[in-house]
Amino acid sequence: MPSPVRIVLVETSHPGNIGASARAMKTMGLNNLVLVAPKEFPCAEATARASGADDVLAGARVVASLGEAIEDCGFVVGASARLRSLPWPTVDPRVCARTICEQAADSRVAIVLGPEHSGLTNEDLGLCHQLVHIPTNPEYSSLNLAMAVQVLCYELRMARDDAPGVVAAAEREAREAPLATADELDGFHQQMETLLADAGFLKPDHPKQLKLRLRRIFHRSRLDQIEINILRGMLTALDPRAQRQHGKHE
Amino acid sequence: MPSPVRIVLVETSHPGNIGASARAMKTMGLNNLVLVAPKEFPCAEATARASGADDVLAGARVVASLGEAIEDCGFVVGASARLRSLPWPTVDPRVCARTICEQAADSRVAIVLGPEHSGLTNEDLGLCHQLVHIPTNPEYSSLNLAMAVQVLCYELRMARDDAPGVVAAAEREAREAPLATADELDGFHQQMETLLADAGFLKPDHPKQLKLRLRRIFHRSRLDQIEINILRGMLTALDPRAQRQHGKHE
Repeated sequence: MPSPVRIVLVETSHPGNIGASARAMKTMGLNNLVLVAPKEFPCAEATARASGADDVLAGARVVASLGEAIEDCGFVVGASARLRSLPWPTVDPRVCARTICEQAADSRVAIVLGPEHSGLTNEDLGLCHQLVHIPTNPEYSSLNLAMAVQVLCYELRMARDDAPGVVAAAEREAREAPLATADELDGFHQQMETLLADAGFLKPDHPKQLKLRLRRIFHRSRLDQIEINILRGMLTALDPRAQRQHGKHE
Repeated sequence: MPSPVRIVLVETSHPGNIGASARAMKTMGLNNLVLVAPKEFPCAEATARASGADDVLAGARVVASLGEAIEDCGFVVGASARLRSLPWPTVDPRVCARTICEQAADSRVAIVLGPEHSGLTNEDLGLCHQLVHIPTNPEYSSLNLAMAVQVLCYELRMARDDAPGVVAAAEREAREAPLATADELDGFHQQMETLLADAGFLKPDHPKQLKLRLRRIFHRSRLDQIEINILRGMLTALDPRAQRQHGKHE
Protein backbone atom coordinates (compact mmCIF):
# COMPACT_ATOMS: atom_id res chain seq x y z
CA MET A 1 0.00 0.00 0.00
CA PRO A 2 1.43 3.42 -0.86
CA SER A 3 2.26 5.52 2.17
CA PRO A 4 0.01 8.59 2.63
CA VAL A 5 3.03 10.88 2.23
CA ARG A 6 4.54 10.90 -1.24
CA ILE A 7 7.87 12.26 -2.38
CA VAL A 8 7.74 14.10 -5.71
CA LEU A 9 11.01 14.69 -7.56
CA VAL A 10 10.72 17.28 -10.33
CA GLU A 11 12.96 17.05 -13.43
CA THR A 12 15.77 15.25 -11.66
CA SER A 13 18.99 15.32 -13.71
CA HIS A 14 21.01 12.52 -12.12
CA PRO A 15 19.39 9.08 -12.02
CA GLY A 16 21.74 8.19 -9.14
CA ASN A 17 19.85 10.72 -7.04
CA ILE A 18 16.55 9.02 -7.84
CA GLY A 19 17.93 5.68 -6.67
CA ALA A 20 19.48 7.16 -3.53
CA SER A 21 16.19 8.96 -2.77
CA ALA A 22 14.29 5.69 -3.05
CA ARG A 23 16.69 4.09 -0.58
CA ALA A 24 16.45 7.08 1.77
CA MET A 25 12.65 6.88 1.69
CA LYS A 26 12.51 3.16 2.35
CA THR A 27 14.88 3.31 5.33
CA MET A 28 12.36 5.69 6.91
CA GLY A 29 9.32 3.61 5.96
CA LEU A 30 8.07 5.56 2.92
CA ASN A 31 7.42 3.96 -0.46
CA ASN A 32 5.39 6.44 -2.50
CA LEU A 33 7.62 8.05 -5.13
CA VAL A 34 6.46 10.18 -8.07
CA LEU A 35 8.87 11.42 -10.74
CA VAL A 36 7.96 14.48 -12.81
CA ALA A 37 9.72 14.37 -16.21
CA PRO A 38 12.97 12.76 -15.01
CA LYS A 39 15.88 13.22 -17.42
CA GLU A 40 16.64 9.49 -17.43
CA PHE A 41 14.46 6.79 -15.92
CA PRO A 42 14.47 3.83 -15.55
CA CYS A 43 18.23 3.62 -15.44
CA ALA A 44 20.86 1.16 -14.19
CA GLU A 45 22.52 3.83 -12.06
CA ALA A 46 19.24 4.55 -10.25
CA THR A 47 18.77 0.85 -9.55
CA ALA A 48 22.35 0.48 -8.30
CA ARG A 49 22.03 3.39 -5.88
CA ALA A 50 18.61 2.20 -4.68
CA SER A 51 20.33 -0.86 -3.20
CA GLY A 52 17.52 -2.98 -1.66
CA ALA A 53 14.89 -0.31 -2.34
CA ASP A 54 14.34 -1.30 -5.96
CA ASP A 55 10.69 -2.04 -5.11
CA VAL A 56 10.21 1.70 -4.43
CA LEU A 57 11.74 2.46 -7.84
CA ALA A 58 9.62 -0.21 -9.53
CA GLY A 59 6.50 1.31 -7.99
CA ALA A 60 7.45 4.89 -8.89
CA ARG A 61 4.89 6.75 -11.00
CA VAL A 62 6.30 8.88 -13.82
CA VAL A 63 4.19 11.89 -14.82
CA ALA A 64 4.61 14.88 -17.13
CA SER A 65 3.82 17.75 -14.79
CA LEU A 66 3.86 18.71 -11.13
CA GLY A 67 0.12 19.41 -11.34
CA GLU A 68 -0.49 15.79 -12.28
CA ALA A 69 1.78 14.52 -9.51
CA ILE A 70 -0.13 16.27 -6.74
CA GLU A 71 -3.69 16.51 -8.09
CA ASP A 72 -5.20 14.34 -5.33
CA CYS A 73 -3.18 15.91 -2.50
CA GLY A 74 -4.69 18.02 0.25
CA PHE A 75 -1.37 19.37 1.48
CA VAL A 76 1.71 20.10 -0.62
CA VAL A 77 5.08 21.10 0.80
CA GLY A 78 7.88 22.39 -1.42
CA ALA A 79 11.54 21.99 -0.47
CA SER A 80 13.47 25.21 -0.87
CA ALA A 81 17.21 25.63 -0.58
CA ARG A 82 17.20 29.39 -0.88
CA LEU A 83 15.23 32.37 0.29
CA ARG A 84 12.60 33.50 -2.14
CA SER A 85 12.12 36.97 -3.49
CA LEU A 86 8.45 36.39 -2.83
CA PRO A 87 8.24 35.40 0.85
CA TRP A 88 6.32 32.16 1.25
CA PRO A 89 5.36 30.45 4.53
CA THR A 90 8.57 28.57 5.32
CA VAL A 91 9.24 26.13 8.17
CA ASP A 92 12.12 23.89 9.20
CA PRO A 93 11.92 20.11 8.64
CA ARG A 94 10.87 19.42 12.23
CA VAL A 95 7.88 21.74 12.21
CA CYS A 96 7.09 20.54 8.70
CA ALA A 97 7.05 16.89 9.81
CA ARG A 98 4.64 17.64 12.64
CA THR A 99 2.28 19.48 10.34
CA ILE A 100 2.44 16.66 7.82
CA CYS A 101 1.66 14.05 10.47
CA GLU A 102 -1.47 16.00 11.38
CA GLN A 103 -2.53 16.51 7.75
CA ALA A 104 -1.79 12.95 6.68
CA ALA A 105 -4.50 11.67 9.01
CA ASP A 106 -7.21 12.81 6.64
CA SER A 107 -5.60 13.78 3.34
CA ARG A 108 -2.85 12.86 0.95
CA VAL A 109 0.35 14.82 1.38
CA ALA A 110 3.21 15.52 -1.05
CA ILE A 111 6.74 16.78 -0.44
CA VAL A 112 8.10 18.25 -3.67
CA LEU A 113 11.79 18.68 -4.52
CA GLY A 114 12.98 20.53 -7.62
CA PRO A 115 15.85 19.88 -10.04
CA GLU A 116 19.37 19.61 -8.54
CA HIS A 117 20.75 22.90 -9.80
CA SER A 118 17.81 25.27 -9.98
CA GLY A 119 15.26 24.07 -7.43
CA LEU A 120 11.52 24.70 -7.78
CA THR A 121 10.33 27.43 -10.14
CA ASN A 122 7.98 30.17 -9.02
CA GLU A 123 5.26 28.37 -10.93
CA ASP A 124 5.88 25.14 -8.96
CA LEU A 125 5.93 27.22 -5.81
CA GLY A 126 2.45 28.45 -6.60
CA LEU A 127 1.20 24.88 -6.15
CA CYS A 128 2.69 24.48 -2.67
CA HIS A 129 0.91 25.27 0.58
CA GLN A 130 4.09 25.64 2.51
CA LEU A 131 7.84 25.61 1.99
CA VAL A 132 10.32 23.60 4.02
CA HIS A 133 13.89 24.82 4.32
CA ILE A 134 16.66 22.59 5.68
CA PRO A 135 19.04 24.78 7.70
CA THR A 136 22.54 24.68 6.23
CA ASN A 137 25.93 26.32 6.49
CA PRO A 138 25.46 29.78 4.93
CA GLU A 139 28.89 29.45 3.30
CA TYR A 140 28.14 26.08 1.69
CA SER A 141 24.52 25.15 1.33
CA SER A 142 25.00 22.59 -1.44
CA LEU A 143 22.88 19.84 0.04
CA ASN A 144 22.59 16.86 -2.31
CA LEU A 145 19.02 16.11 -3.46
CA ALA A 146 18.89 12.60 -2.00
CA MET A 147 20.41 13.90 1.26
CA ALA A 148 17.56 16.40 1.48
CA VAL A 149 15.08 13.55 0.95
CA GLN A 150 16.85 11.62 3.72
CA VAL A 151 16.62 14.49 6.21
CA LEU A 152 12.95 15.19 5.44
CA CYS A 153 11.97 11.51 5.67
CA TYR A 154 13.99 11.13 8.87
CA GLU A 155 12.02 13.98 10.43
CA LEU A 156 8.78 12.33 9.33
CA ARG A 157 9.80 9.13 11.05
CA MET A 158 10.84 10.97 14.21
CA ALA A 159 7.50 12.80 14.27
CA ARG A 160 5.61 9.58 13.72
CA ASP A 161 7.53 7.69 16.36
CA ASP A 162 6.97 10.47 18.90
CA ALA A 163 10.62 10.81 19.78
CA PRO A 164 10.52 11.32 23.55
CA GLY A 165 8.62 8.09 24.08
CA VAL A 166 10.95 6.16 21.83
CA VAL A 167 14.03 7.40 23.59
CA ALA A 168 12.58 6.61 26.97
CA ALA A 169 11.89 3.09 25.74
CA ALA A 170 15.42 2.75 24.36
CA GLU A 171 16.84 3.85 27.68
CA ARG A 172 14.67 1.36 29.51
CA GLU A 173 15.81 -1.41 27.16
CA ALA A 174 19.42 -0.55 27.95
CA ARG A 175 18.87 -1.84 31.51
CA GLU A 176 19.05 -5.54 32.11
CA ALA A 177 18.14 -5.44 35.79
CA PRO A 178 16.39 -3.15 38.26
CA LEU A 179 18.42 -0.25 39.58
CA ALA A 180 20.31 -1.03 42.74
CA THR A 181 18.54 0.13 45.90
CA ALA A 182 20.18 2.72 48.16
CA ASP A 183 20.86 -0.08 50.60
CA GLU A 184 22.63 -2.25 48.04
CA LEU A 185 24.64 0.73 46.89
CA ASP A 186 25.66 1.51 50.46
CA GLY A 187 26.71 -2.10 51.05
CA PHE A 188 28.98 -1.91 48.03
CA HIS A 189 30.50 1.38 49.15
CA GLN A 190 31.12 0.09 52.67
CA GLN A 191 32.89 -2.97 51.30
CA MET A 192 35.02 -0.74 49.07
CA GLU A 193 35.82 1.70 51.87
CA THR A 194 36.90 -1.08 54.23
CA LEU A 195 39.14 -2.55 51.56
CA LEU A 196 40.66 0.83 50.71
CA ALA A 197 41.24 1.66 54.38
CA ASP A 198 43.06 -1.67 54.82
CA ALA A 199 45.18 -0.89 51.76
CA GLY A 200 46.13 2.48 53.20
CA PHE A 201 44.40 4.38 50.40
CA LEU A 202 41.71 5.92 52.60
CA LYS A 203 43.56 7.60 55.47
CA PRO A 204 41.76 8.02 58.80
CA ASP A 205 42.80 11.69 59.04
CA HIS A 206 41.09 13.02 55.90
CA PRO A 207 39.00 10.28 54.38
CA LYS A 208 35.75 12.20 53.92
CA GLN A 209 36.45 14.05 50.69
CA LEU A 210 37.85 10.97 48.98
CA LYS A 211 34.99 8.73 50.14
CA LEU A 212 32.48 11.23 48.91
CA ARG A 213 34.20 11.55 45.56
CA LEU A 214 34.17 7.78 45.09
CA ARG A 215 30.51 7.59 46.01
CA ARG A 216 29.70 10.35 43.58
CA ILE A 217 31.40 8.51 40.70
CA PHE A 218 29.27 5.42 41.20
CA HIS A 219 26.08 7.34 41.96
CA ARG A 220 26.33 9.17 38.67
CA SER A 221 26.58 5.87 36.88
CA ARG A 222 23.14 4.68 38.19
CA LEU A 223 24.17 1.07 38.85
CA ASP A 224 21.77 -1.81 38.42
CA GLN A 225 21.75 -4.98 40.52
CA ILE A 226 23.83 -7.05 38.11
CA GLU A 227 26.46 -4.34 38.08
CA ILE A 228 26.53 -4.08 41.87
CA ASN A 229 27.17 -7.83 42.02
CA ILE A 230 29.99 -7.54 39.46
CA LEU A 231 31.61 -4.71 41.39
CA ARG A 232 31.29 -6.53 44.72
CA GLY A 233 32.80 -9.65 43.15
CA MET A 234 35.64 -7.51 41.88
CA LEU A 235 36.29 -6.09 45.35
CA THR A 236 36.31 -9.57 46.87
CA ALA A 237 38.79 -10.74 44.24
CA LEU A 238 41.07 -7.83 45.15
CA ASP A 239 40.78 -8.33 48.92
CA PRO A 240 43.78 -10.22 50.34
CA ARG A 241 41.82 -11.11 53.48
CA ALA A 242 38.88 -12.52 51.52
CA GLN A 243 41.36 -14.52 49.44
CA ARG A 244 43.02 -16.04 52.52
CA GLN A 245 39.62 -16.98 53.93
CA HIS A 246 38.44 -18.38 50.63
CA GLY A 247 37.21 -21.92 51.10
CA LYS A 248 36.52 -21.45 54.78
CA HIS A 249 33.68 -19.00 54.54
CA GLU A 250 32.29 -19.52 51.09
CA MET B 1 39.97 25.98 12.35
CA PRO B 2 38.74 22.42 12.89
CA SER B 3 35.24 22.22 14.39
CA PRO B 4 35.13 20.85 17.97
CA VAL B 5 33.00 17.93 16.79
CA ARG B 6 34.84 15.48 14.56
CA ILE B 7 33.42 12.74 12.39
CA VAL B 8 35.42 9.51 12.47
CA LEU B 9 34.84 6.96 9.71
CA VAL B 10 36.28 3.54 10.50
CA GLU B 11 37.50 1.27 7.69
CA THR B 12 35.18 2.72 5.07
CA SER B 13 35.00 0.45 2.00
CA HIS B 14 33.60 2.83 -0.62
CA PRO B 15 35.53 6.03 -1.27
CA GLY B 16 32.32 7.56 -2.66
CA ASN B 17 30.91 7.42 0.85
CA ILE B 18 33.90 9.34 2.19
CA GLY B 19 33.33 12.10 -0.36
CA ALA B 20 29.59 12.22 0.24
CA SER B 21 30.21 12.34 4.01
CA ALA B 22 32.56 15.31 3.58
CA ARG B 23 29.87 17.12 1.61
CA ALA B 24 27.20 16.23 4.17
CA MET B 25 29.42 17.58 6.95
CA LYS B 26 30.22 20.82 5.20
CA THR B 27 26.58 21.60 4.39
CA MET B 28 25.96 21.49 8.13
CA GLY B 29 29.06 23.53 9.02
CA LEU B 30 31.42 20.75 10.13
CA ASN B 31 34.92 20.29 8.70
CA ASN B 32 36.77 17.91 11.01
CA LEU B 33 37.04 14.49 9.37
CA VAL B 34 39.23 11.60 10.55
CA LEU B 35 39.56 8.37 8.56
CA VAL B 36 40.64 5.18 10.30
CA ALA B 37 42.32 2.80 7.84
CA PRO B 38 40.12 3.64 4.82
CA LYS B 39 40.22 1.01 2.08
CA GLU B 40 41.05 3.58 -0.59
CA PHE B 41 41.99 7.20 0.05
CA PRO B 42 42.67 9.65 -1.49
CA CYS B 43 40.58 8.62 -4.47
CA ALA B 44 39.01 10.35 -7.49
CA GLU B 45 35.57 8.98 -6.60
CA ALA B 46 35.75 10.51 -3.13
CA THR B 47 36.69 13.89 -4.61
CA ALA B 48 33.88 13.71 -7.16
CA ARG B 49 31.24 12.94 -4.54
CA ALA B 50 32.58 15.63 -2.21
CA SER B 51 31.50 18.24 -4.77
CA GLY B 52 32.55 21.61 -3.32
CA ALA B 53 33.64 20.06 -0.01
CA ASP B 54 37.07 18.98 -1.27
CA ASP B 55 38.66 21.19 1.41
CA VAL B 56 37.16 18.89 4.06
CA LEU B 57 38.69 15.89 2.24
CA ALA B 58 42.03 17.65 1.87
CA GLY B 59 42.06 18.38 5.61
CA ALA B 60 41.04 14.84 6.59
CA ARG B 61 43.45 13.08 8.93
CA VAL B 62 44.15 9.41 8.17
CA VAL B 63 45.10 7.24 11.16
CA ALA B 64 45.68 3.56 11.78
CA SER B 65 43.37 2.91 14.72
CA LEU B 66 40.21 4.22 16.35
CA GLY B 67 42.17 4.78 19.55
CA GLU B 68 44.43 7.20 17.72
CA ALA B 69 41.47 8.99 16.15
CA ILE B 70 39.84 9.79 19.47
CA GLU B 71 42.71 9.96 21.95
CA ASP B 72 42.15 13.64 22.82
CA CYS B 73 38.34 13.41 22.93
CA GLY B 74 36.34 13.81 26.13
CA PHE B 75 33.13 12.45 24.66
CA VAL B 76 32.85 9.71 22.05
CA VAL B 77 29.58 8.67 20.43
CA GLY B 78 29.32 5.53 18.30
CA ALA B 79 26.69 5.16 15.58
CA SER B 80 24.90 1.85 15.80
CA ALA B 81 22.45 0.44 13.28
CA ARG B 82 21.50 -2.58 15.32
CA LEU B 83 20.65 -3.54 18.85
CA ARG B 84 23.58 -4.96 20.76
CA SER B 85 23.71 -8.19 22.72
CA LEU B 86 25.16 -6.18 25.56
CA PRO B 87 22.92 -3.14 25.87
CA TRP B 88 24.88 0.11 25.78
CA PRO B 89 23.43 3.54 26.62
CA THR B 90 21.68 4.44 23.35
CA VAL B 91 19.94 7.64 22.33
CA ASP B 92 18.35 8.97 19.18
CA PRO B 93 20.13 11.61 17.04
CA ARG B 94 18.19 14.49 18.59
CA VAL B 95 19.07 13.69 22.17
CA CYS B 96 22.60 12.91 21.03
CA ALA B 97 22.98 16.31 19.36
CA ARG B 98 21.85 18.14 22.49
CA THR B 99 24.31 16.22 24.64
CA ILE B 100 27.10 16.90 22.17
CA CYS B 101 26.36 20.63 22.12
CA GLU B 102 26.74 20.67 25.90
CA GLN B 103 29.92 18.60 25.89
CA ALA B 104 31.57 20.43 23.00
CA ALA B 105 31.68 23.60 25.08
CA ASP B 106 34.62 22.27 27.08
CA SER B 107 35.95 19.13 25.42
CA ARG B 108 36.54 17.58 22.03
CA VAL B 109 33.81 15.30 20.77
CA ALA B 110 33.88 12.49 18.20
CA ILE B 111 31.07 10.74 16.37
CA VAL B 112 32.29 7.37 15.14
CA LEU B 113 30.78 5.36 12.28
CA GLY B 114 31.90 1.83 11.43
CA PRO B 115 32.41 0.06 8.09
CA GLU B 116 29.41 -0.03 5.72
CA HIS B 117 28.53 -3.69 6.10
CA SER B 118 29.51 -4.65 9.60
CA GLY B 119 29.34 -1.48 11.70
CA LEU B 120 31.43 -0.96 14.82
CA THR B 121 33.00 -3.96 16.53
CA ASN B 122 32.53 -4.66 20.22
CA GLU B 123 36.08 -3.49 20.73
CA ASP B 124 35.29 -0.13 19.07
CA LEU B 125 32.15 0.04 21.18
CA GLY B 126 34.29 -0.26 24.30
CA LEU B 127 35.79 3.13 23.40
CA CYS B 128 32.41 4.89 23.09
CA HIS B 129 30.61 6.66 25.91
CA GLN B 130 27.26 6.49 24.23
CA LEU B 131 25.64 5.02 21.16
CA VAL B 132 23.39 6.88 18.79
CA HIS B 133 20.79 4.96 16.82
CA ILE B 134 18.97 6.53 13.88
CA PRO B 135 15.40 5.21 13.91
CA THR B 136 14.66 3.31 10.71
CA ASN B 137 12.07 1.11 9.08
CA PRO B 138 12.40 -2.25 10.89
CA GLU B 139 11.86 -4.04 7.57
CA TYR B 140 14.60 -2.11 5.76
CA SER B 141 17.17 -0.40 7.91
CA SER B 142 19.87 -0.17 5.24
CA LEU B 143 20.80 3.46 5.79
CA ASN B 144 23.75 4.49 3.63
CA LEU B 145 26.84 5.59 5.60
CA ALA B 146 26.94 9.14 4.20
CA MET B 147 23.18 9.46 4.77
CA ALA B 148 23.75 8.60 8.42
CA VAL B 149 26.45 11.28 8.57
CA GLN B 150 23.98 13.74 7.00
CA VAL B 151 21.24 13.02 9.53
CA LEU B 152 23.63 13.24 12.51
CA CYS B 153 25.19 16.50 11.28
CA TYR B 154 21.76 17.93 10.52
CA GLU B 155 20.69 17.27 14.10
CA LEU B 156 23.88 18.94 15.34
CA ARG B 157 23.05 22.02 13.31
CA MET B 158 19.45 22.06 14.55
CA ALA B 159 20.67 21.72 18.14
CA ARG B 160 23.27 24.44 17.68
CA ASP B 161 20.69 26.79 16.20
CA ASP B 162 18.41 26.01 19.15
CA ALA B 163 21.32 26.20 21.57
CA PRO B 164 20.17 29.10 23.75
CA GLY B 165 17.02 27.20 24.61
CA VAL B 166 18.62 23.80 24.81
CA VAL B 167 21.74 24.36 26.82
CA ALA B 168 20.28 26.00 29.89
CA ALA B 169 23.22 26.99 32.07
CA ALA B 170 21.46 25.54 35.08
CA GLU B 171 21.34 22.11 33.47
CA ARG B 172 25.08 21.95 33.02
CA GLU B 173 26.86 19.89 35.56
CA ALA B 174 29.35 21.60 37.79
CA ARG B 175 32.68 20.00 36.90
CA GLU B 176 35.88 20.61 38.81
CA ALA B 177 38.17 19.42 36.05
CA PRO B 178 38.02 18.72 32.32
CA LEU B 179 36.52 15.40 31.29
CA ALA B 180 39.03 12.59 30.99
CA THR B 181 40.11 12.00 27.40
CA ALA B 182 39.47 8.67 25.70
CA ASP B 183 43.16 7.91 26.09
CA GLU B 184 43.16 8.57 29.84
CA LEU B 185 40.03 6.50 30.26
CA ASP B 186 41.54 3.65 28.32
CA GLY B 187 44.70 3.78 30.44
CA PHE B 188 42.58 3.43 33.57
CA HIS B 189 40.65 0.51 32.12
CA GLN B 190 43.79 -1.26 31.02
CA GLN B 191 45.29 -0.90 34.49
CA MET B 192 42.10 -2.26 36.02
CA GLU B 193 41.87 -5.14 33.57
CA THR B 194 45.48 -6.20 34.20
CA LEU B 195 44.91 -6.11 37.95
CA LEU B 196 41.67 -8.08 37.69
CA ALA B 197 43.26 -10.66 35.39
CA ASP B 198 46.09 -11.12 37.93
CA ALA B 199 43.51 -11.54 40.69
CA GLY B 200 41.72 -14.23 38.68
CA PHE B 201 38.55 -12.14 38.37
CA LEU B 202 38.78 -11.67 34.59
CA LYS B 203 39.18 -15.14 33.15
CA PRO B 204 40.98 -15.54 29.82
CA ASP B 205 38.21 -17.78 28.42
CA HIS B 206 35.31 -15.31 28.61
CA PRO B 207 36.66 -11.94 29.62
CA LYS B 208 35.03 -9.82 26.92
CA GLN B 209 31.52 -9.45 28.28
CA LEU B 210 32.77 -8.66 31.78
CA LYS B 211 35.35 -6.15 30.51
CA LEU B 212 32.69 -4.39 28.46
CA ARG B 213 30.33 -4.30 31.44
CA LEU B 214 32.99 -2.70 33.60
CA ARG B 215 33.83 -0.17 30.90
CA ARG B 216 30.16 0.68 30.54
CA ILE B 217 29.79 1.42 34.26
CA PHE B 218 32.59 3.97 34.18
CA HIS B 219 31.66 5.42 30.80
CA ARG B 220 28.19 6.19 32.05
CA SER B 221 29.68 8.06 34.92
CA ARG B 222 31.58 10.51 32.63
CA LEU B 223 34.78 10.73 34.67
CA ASP B 224 36.81 13.90 34.93
CA GLN B 225 40.59 14.02 35.25
CA ILE B 226 40.65 14.30 39.05
CA GLU B 227 38.43 11.25 39.28
CA ILE B 228 40.58 9.23 36.89
CA ASN B 229 43.57 10.00 39.10
CA ILE B 230 41.68 8.91 42.21
CA LEU B 231 40.61 5.66 40.58
CA ARG B 232 44.10 4.92 39.29
CA GLY B 233 45.53 5.64 42.75
CA MET B 234 42.98 3.24 44.17
CA LEU B 235 43.98 0.50 41.72
CA THR B 236 47.65 0.98 42.57
CA ALA B 237 46.85 0.74 46.30
CA LEU B 238 45.05 -2.55 45.67
CA ASP B 239 47.78 -4.02 43.47
CA PRO B 240 50.00 -6.42 45.42
CA ARG B 241 52.74 -6.13 42.80
CA ALA B 242 52.76 -2.33 42.93
CA GLN B 243 52.92 -2.52 46.72
CA ARG B 244 55.93 -4.87 46.70
CA GLN B 245 57.72 -2.52 44.34
CA HIS B 246 56.82 0.51 46.41
CA GLY B 247 59.95 2.45 47.30
CA LYS B 248 61.92 1.01 44.45
CA HIS B 249 60.07 2.66 41.63
CA GLU B 250 58.48 5.68 43.18
